[in-house]
Formats: sequence, structure tokens, C-alpha cells
Amino acid sequence: MPVISKRAQAIQPFHVMKLLARARALEAQGKSIMHMEVGEPDFNTPQPIVDAGVAAIKQGAVHYTPAVGMTSLREAIAAHYLKQFNVSLSPDRIIVTPGASGALLLALSVILEAEQSVLLSDPGYPCNRNFISLLQARSVLVNVDAASNFQLNTELIKQHWETDTAAVLLASPSNPTGTLIEQSELASILDFAKLKNASVLVDEIYQGLVYDTEPSTALSNSDDVFIINSFSKYFSMTGWRIGWLVVPEAFAGVADNLAQNLFLAAPTPAQHAALAAFEPETVKILEQRRCEFKARRDYLLTALPKLGFTIPVIPEGAFYIYANCDVFTKNSFEFVEQCLEQAGVALTPGIDFGENKAEQYVRFAYTTSLENIKEAVARLERFICALS
Amino acid sequence: MPVISKRAQAIQPFHVMKLLARARALEAQGKSIMHMEVGEPDFNTPQPIVDAGVAAIKQGAVHYTPAVGMTSLREAIAAHYLKQFNVSLSPDRIIVTPGASGALLLALSVILEAEQSVLLSDPGYPCNRNFISLLQARSVLVNVDAASNFQLNTELIKQHWETDTAAVLLASPSNPTGTLIEQSELASILDFAKLKNASVLVDEIYQGLVYDTEPSTALSNSDDVFIINSFSKYFSMTGWRIGWLVVPEAFAGVADNLAQNLFLAAPTPAQHAALAAFEPETVKILEQRRCEFKARRDYLLTALPKLGFTIPVIPEGAFYIYANCDVFTKNSFEFVEQCLEQAGVALTPGIDFGENKAEQYVRFAYTTSLENIKEAVARLERFICALS
Repeated sequence: MPVISKRAQAIQPFHVMKLLARARALEAQGKSIMHMEVGEPDFNTPQPIVDAGVAAIKQGAVHYTPAVGMTSLREAIAAHYLKQFNVSLSPDRIIVTPGASGALLLALSVILEAEQSVLLSDPGYPCNRNFISLLQARSVLVNVDAASNFQLNTELIKQHWETDTAAVLLASPSNPTGTLIEQSELASILDFAKLKNASVLVDEIYQGLVYDTEPSTALSNSDDVFIINSFSKYFSMTGWRIGWLVVPEAFAGVADNLAQNLFLAAPTPAQHAALAAFEPETVKILEQRRCEFKARRDYLLTALPKLGFTIPVIPEGAFYIYANCDVFTKNSFEFVEQCLEQAGVALTPGIDFGENKAEQYVRFAYTTSLENIKEAVARLERFICALS
Repeated sequence: MPVISKRAQAIQPFHVMKLLARARALEAQGKSIMHMEVGEPDFNTPQPIVDAGVAAIKQGAVHYTPAVGMTSLREAIAAHYLKQFNVSLSPDRIIVTPGASGALLLALSVILEAEQSVLLSDPGYPCNRNFISLLQARSVLVNVDAASNFQLNTELIKQHWETDTAAVLLASPSNPTGTLIEQSELASILDFAKLKNASVLVDEIYQGLVYDTEPSTALSNSDDVFIINSFSKYFSMTGWRIGWLVVPEAFAGVADNLAQNLFLAAPTPAQHAALAAFEPETVKILEQRRCEFKARRDYLLTALPKLGFTIPVIPEGAFYIYANCDVFTKNSFEFVEQCLEQAGVALTPGIDFGENKAEQYVRFAYTTSLENIKEAVARLERFICALS
């Protein structure tokens, strides 16, 4: 028999998938599970977006679009940058993609040679390093902690720079920590990368989901940056599979070529639906949801420390809290298994985000109602009391 | 500035895209263009599929599915193999993907090491070799002609086998030639590959579109084969971006892991829509369309030779005719430009499918109405008369 390629063997499944399967099994037995492991908004897609998608399908919008996406959607995204961030951006630099996953594959493919390295934070979104290894390039994981707001900074980047480093991948807000990169730090990183002729990629898929500041974009600092974005999170469009990539102007042509080959195009119904994403009526709904997310976060920021968890830095965005659980356990994966089996609360273990003290951390996703979150906290409280 | 990666630079845009842009410009000037360059059915998605998709969206089916696709859809695809081909297949071996593009990337990723080679026919579908180079593997293009029905056969495969050949990629029906692989030849290729511990991938995305025989699948010959399929062509679902991959059982786990990372999942609305693709009501519509495609093909098989084109072998499937135009030109790309400018007929030049006598060939796609096709033939006739 042919063997599985090394690049595929190197990719570990998310540990949370095993837990999710176990949670489903427990639910099938009639047990109630509070889901705080899922990186997906619990809200349905806003009605104006749904309506736009349905109307388009009914009118026959079921054929291929250009590989880079419909002109109208690229223009709508450009208009969004101008309106929300005062950033003027040619629609030619925007490539509509099948989710942020497509944007990430496209961006890494146009910049990386085999064996080159990319600097990433640990903890960080686990798929990033798997895309890099798929392309036979290397991830250099840089341990980050509260001292740098769980983000890369210029100092860390300089320390870990190698002769074959080709890119730095940042995320703001970050998954799993929810922290932001300060604009001044970002400017400094962009300057350093420019000096090194390296690329900077910024994952902004949680851009709209910030709670203590206004949303921001790295495009305010520079045009020489790759931006990965998505309609999945803030716009609640996960299942539609639609995102976008912004490239420096010099990369627009090659990104089009590559998109033609890799995807043909993003789903057409999703593109039409997304046209309604920036409408005032939709934004109103999304801002209400952002307030709801904020209320959930604020509740957990108070409740979790009372249970004994430590939250090293305030998560200012996304819908995650990365909490230290080392007062309870030396093995957060086992701890998460216990939370599921004994408390009926599903969390994600730190190991899914890297190796940097991962055994001390769990990720709470506040992607369920405040009522459910309160119930989860009550269950964890009983479970933790029983531990001691 | 960072430079464009070699792997991305190596990917040429489809030449037909330039022609398509020119066609759009001519149309904007009010000129009528007959489109026979497009690899997409002119039919809208059948109504039962549209209705299923719309109903699902309205009911909130807008969240992620499992990475490998909804269980119900995987079961429906398995049931389809049993009913149409009498092939019993575990749904665990079926991975629902964002189009055949996703299936191809997934299959190649789980089998190919860097520097290994894959045997492909020339002419052939151009994206195949671009996926392979993206993964730092090598395409070995094998010239095929009428003698082998424009397909690879065991003899050709043996001749071009290298020590690092890891896979053979076949397509039946093929794009651009529309030819099929005989089951006995396929069995022989599968045997040879087994002997060499190599993988066989069969692109069956035009499976339902055959006109002189019953549809077939390589799964009737072997379980040790990767099948790339799609709802795009026979099922007229191009813009929905949904296809599937069948893997040998040993690859099911790793394909799941990789799908989690590469795509997260195929679009949810498309998955629900596709559930209606195998319903009798839908099949009835699709079979009417197949008859319409057959009528178009049969018309062209008579009309094109009268104009002076040579059709080396009868295309038994897909919706393409790969026609030799060397009585008119030594450069089919220039010829195609002239057809567009002077006759208002858009075709695809041979160069988009490889380098094997590509300058002698053009591809006709019969993805427009018989009325349009007749008009295109009449225009070409006048154009060709004026040439001589």
C-alpha cells in the first residue's frame, strides 16, 4: 500500500475533536453538556445576510464568479475599510476566499519557499503551522506570555530571527488569548520586517469583536502587509465559508493566478449574502451581539478568578479567555476531560494551541448564552469544590 | 519588498482568462459573443437542489459541519455508489470537500512527498500540475494522442515510470478531450501501481456526463484508489463549491485531520442542497440535460469536420470537443484570438491543457444552447471561408 505522506502525518488532529466526540456521546446518553469549547458564534447569520443569500440563489446566482470574487463584493469590502478605518484600498488588492483558511493558504503560497521559516506566537491558532508545514516551510514558534500581552513584539522577533526567516504571522485579536497588538508595536514590527525584506501577515478575523477599544487594522500602518480576514466570526457566517485576503499591490496578479487554480472561486451564494454584511441594518444586529459577547466576557472575567483560574491579561477581543488552571492540575488536558465527564462542561485544552506551558492552560469560548455560561460556572464551582 | 515565491511564479494564468476578459470588453461595446470557452454548464442548479439549499439556510443551517462533511450527505453519496454502480462503500471513506479543487489538494497532500513525481496526461486539466508544484512535487507530463484514446495506459505509464514516481492521475471522462478509460485498461493500471506501491487518483468529475455508454467508476475495480468527484458538472452546482473525495480506508483518518486544517468544512448550504442531488425528481431533470448535451455534441461532431476541424477520437463524455485546427493555423492561440475578434466566437486554446501539439488544438465547450452553437458554427464558417 502507498504510505501516508510525511507532511500529512505531521498534522495532529485537534485534541478538542476527541473531547467533542465524547461530549456528543454523553449528550446521546441524555447528559447535559455546556459547550464552551467551540470557536463559532452561537448566533445564526443575521437575517439581512440570510435574505440576500436566499434571494441571490433564487435568482440563479449559482454559477462561478471570478476567482478573486465578485467586483461588487470587493468594492463593498474596500468601502468598509474606508468607512470604518479611513483606509483607502484598491479593490484589486482584495481577494475573496473560501473562508480565512483559503486566505491563509493563498498568502503563504505566494510568499514561502520550501525550508524558509515563519515566526509565530505560541500559544496561537494551530492551523497556521499546519499550512506552513504543508508547504514544506518551517514554523518557528516563539513563546509569548503576559509580559508581551501574549503577542509577538519586535524584541522577540529579533531574538528569533533566522537567515531564512521569510515572514511573521501575527493575530489581533488573537486566538486563544483574545489580546491585541498595539499600533505602535505593530508599526515597529512592520519596519523591522521591511528592513529584512520579509512579509508580515496579520490575522484580523476577530477584527469587529473588540470590547474596550475601537476595531483597528494593520492597513492603517502600511500597504506592505497581508491581511487575513473572514465573514465567519463578527458577521456570524461560519458555515458559508467566506473570507478575504488583502495583499500588497505587487502580489495581486499572482494571487489571482493562484486562486484560479486552488479554489476556482469562493462560494457564490456566500458572496451575495456577504454583500449585505456591511448594511446599516446588519451592523445594528452585529453590534448588539458584540455587546452580548462583552457581557459574557465581563461575567467570566469576574467569575473565573473566583473559582481559582488566573487570567494573566485581559482579553480585549475575540470570544476566548485563556485561563491558567495550574492550581487545579499539572495536566490541563486531563483536567478538561474531568470537566467534561464530571461537570458536563466542555473546554479546549491548551495543547491545541502549542507547547508553551500548554499543560497549565485551558481556553474558554464564550460562544454560548450568558445563561449557559452561568450554569457552566456553577457546575465548575461544584466540581472544583469536590476536588479539594 | 518581499518577492513572489517560486512556486507561485511557476503558475501560469489560464490563457483563456485573457480571452474571456477580451470577450467581456467586446460585449461591453455591444458586440455579440458566442461563448464556447466556458467549462461550466449553462443550466442553473436544478430546482429541487435550490429548494433544499434555500430551506436549509432559512432553518439556520449556516454553522460549521464536521470537517469531512455531514453524515447524511456522506451516506447519500455512498447510497448513490451502491444504487448506480453496485459499489458498496463505507461513508467513512467519503470526504465532502469545497469543490473538486479541495478534493484534489487533499488527495495530493496525503500522498506526496516533496520531489516525488506524478504521471499525468498531456493534454489534461491544467490545475492538476499546479497543485503538484504547489506541494513541491513534480509533474511528469506524458504525451497522449488518438492511439491511446488521449488517455494514459499501462504501456505509457511503464515507459515514463521513475524511481520517485508516487502516483498516477487519470481523468475519465477527460478534460479537454472527453475520452474515457476502458475498464480493462484501468484494471491493468491499478495492478501496475499496486506493484509499485504507488497511488492512483481518478478524476471522475464528469462521471454522469457520458453519451454512448453507462457511467462508470474506478471503485468498481479497486478500493485502493483515490476518487475525485464534484457536484459541479453533472449536477450543475458549480458556484456552490462542493465536491467529494473517496480515499482508501487507511487514509480516512489523515484526510479528516487535514480537512480540519485546510478547509474547516465544505459550505454548509451547499451540503444541504446536495442532499437533494440524488432524488428521483432531480435525476429526471439531470438526465434531460444530459440528452441536451448529447444533442449538442452530436451536432458539433458533424458540423466541425465540415468546417475543416479534425476530431481525432469521439469524445464520449464531459462537454468538450478537442479539435485539431492545423489546416487553419500553426498557432491555435492566435487562431482563437481571431475567432473571437473576427467571428465573435470564444474558444479555449490548446496551450491551456499542456504542451503536446497544443498549437494544433482548440477546445470547444458545448455549454451553451444548441441555438447558440449553431450560430457559432455559422460564424466560424464565414470566418473560415474568408481565410482561404
